Amino acid sequence: MTKNQDKIIGIVGGVGPYAGADLFRKICSQTRAETDQEHLEVVMISDPSHINDRSVYLEKGGGRNPGDAIGDIILRLAAAGAEVVGIPCNTAHSPAIVAAVESKVIASGVMVEIVHMIREVAEAMRRTPTRPKRMGLLATTGTYHSKVYSEILGPEGFEVIVPEVFTQKDVHRAIYDPKFGIKAQGHPISTEAKGILEGASRELLELGAEKIILGCTELPLAFPDESDIYVDPTLILARALIREAAPEKLKPL
Amino acid sequence: MTKNQDKIIGIVGGVGPYAGADLFRKICSQTRAETDQEHLEVVMISDPSHINDRSVYLEKGGGRNPGDAIGDIILRLAAAGAEVVGIPCNTAHSPAIVAAVESKVIASGVMVEIVHMIREVAEAMRRTPTRPKRMGLLATTGTYHSKVYSEILGPEGFEVIVPEVFTQKDVHRAIYDPKFGIKAQGHPISTEAKGILEGASRELLELGAEKIILGCTELPLAFPDESDIYVDPTLILARALIREAAPEKLKPL
Repeated sequence: MTKNQDKIIGIVGGVGPYAGADLFRKICSQTRAETDQEHLEVVMISDPSHINDRSVYLEKGGGRNPGDAIGDIILRLAAAGAEVVGIPCNTAHSPAIVAAVESKVIASGVMVEIVHMIREVAEAMRRTPTRPKRMGLLATTGTYHSKVYSEILGPEGFEVIVPEVFTQKDVHRAIYDPKFGIKAQGHPISTEAKGILEGASRELLELGAEKIILGCTELPLAFPDESDIYVDPTLILARALIREAAPEKLKPL
Repeated sequence: MTKNQDKIIGIVGGVGPYAGADLFRKICSQTRAETDQEHLEVVMISDPSHINDRSVYLEKGGGRNPGDAIGDIILRLAAAGAEVVGIPCNTAHSPAIVAAVESKVIASGVMVEIVHMIREVAEAMRRTPTRPKRMGLLATTGTYHSKVYSEILGPEGFEVIVPEVFTQKDVHRAIYDPKFGIKAQGHPISTEAKGILEGASRELLELGAEKIILGCTELPLAFPDESDIYVDPTLILARALIREAAPEKLKPL
C-alpha cells in the first residue's frame, strides 16, 4: 500500500487513561471505514505518572505545571510521526496549562498542530441547528475556576450555567473520589457517581440549561448513550482530529 | 516524580483498531490504581493501512506477510519506549505471521518482549479452578485454518471444538461483513452479528464445549459483559502485559 496524504493523529493519553481510550474509540467510530485498512493512523502515549493532576495544580498551585509534561508527550508523539494532536482533558485546556504546552512545543521548533478541544466545542455549538443559548456545565472544580468554558463560550453569545456550590462539590467527587469516583472506577462507573451526575443534570436543566456539556473527559464514560441533551467534547475532539487529518474520511453527523 | 521500575507497555494497534482500544481499556481496568498517576505507561501505534488483512493472507496467500508490518510497528513502539508488547489479534498469532514478526524484531537487535496472547490463554485455562477440558472456539476462518489454538491448547490436554462449517461461514461474516460485521460496525454491533454469534455459541455448547474462547479480538466488543462461559483473550493479554510490566499493579482475579 502506498503512503497516502492522510495526516497521522496523536493522542496525549493519560489525562485520564480512560479518556484516551474513549477518544481513540470515537476516532474509529467517526471514520468512514469498512475495513481495518481504511482507518486512520493514530499514535497514543499514555504516561500519566509524569503529568501532575490538572485540578490540583489549578486549585492549589505548586509543583510542576502539567502543561510541561503534556508538551513533552506531544514532542514524543511528533517523533513517532503524529502531525495533528488532541489532548482529551478539559482541565488541561485552562489558559495556564495550555500556555505551558504551547511554549514547550514552540520552543522545540517541532511542527505539530494541536486541536483545541474547548474551541471546537464552541464551534460545534455555533453550528448546531437549534443554536442553544444556555449551556450547563458538568466539570471538575478546577475547570470551573479556570473559567475555560465561559471565557471561550461567553464571547460567542452563550451563557454558561454551573451547578450550585454543594452540587459542584459532589460532581467533583463523582470524578475524583478514590473509592467511587470515575477515575478510580470507570467500567462500569459506580451507582454513587451516576446518581450524583444525574441529580446535577436535573439541577442544570431546572436552572435553564438547554444543553449540558460533559466538561470532563471522564464524564462521557458515565453517559455512553448519545442524547440530545448532553454535549460530548471527546466526540467533538475526535471529529475535529479526523477533519484535520483526512476530511474526506469524516462521517456525516 | 522519579522514574520507577515499571516497564512501558506497547500495543500494536490497528489489528483491528477497536481491538487496540479494547486492550488499552482493559489494561487500565486491570491495574491497581485510584488516581490517573498510578496507571502504567502505555504506547499504542494504530497503523492499519500498512498491515494486510491477516485472514486474507492466510486463506489466499500472496501479498506482503502482515507480520512484516507488525514487526515494523513493534520497532516503532520500542523507539517510543515500549519494553513489553502485545498484539491484540488472534489471527496474527498464526505461526506463519508470528515467524515474520519475530524475524523482523530479532534481525533489528532491539530488545523487546512480545507477549504471546494464545499461549497466555492456554496458561490461564490451565490455572482455571474448574479446569475445563473442551473449549469452543469462535474465530475468523483464518484462525481456524491456521490451527493456532488447537496446536497450542491440544498438547496441554484441551480439546478445541469448532462450529459446523456453515455456522463458521456466518461467524466469519459477523466479523468481516462490510455492512453488518463488527469490523465495519463496532459500536454498537449490529443485531445480525449478535444473532449469529449467539447462535454459534449455543451450537458450541451443544457440541460439548465447557468454555467458549472469543478467538477474534473484535468479539469481546460483542460480549462486553463478563460471563463464566466466555474466555476473553484480550483481557488475558491485558493481564499478562501488566504482570510483565509491573506485577504488583495487577489486580487480583
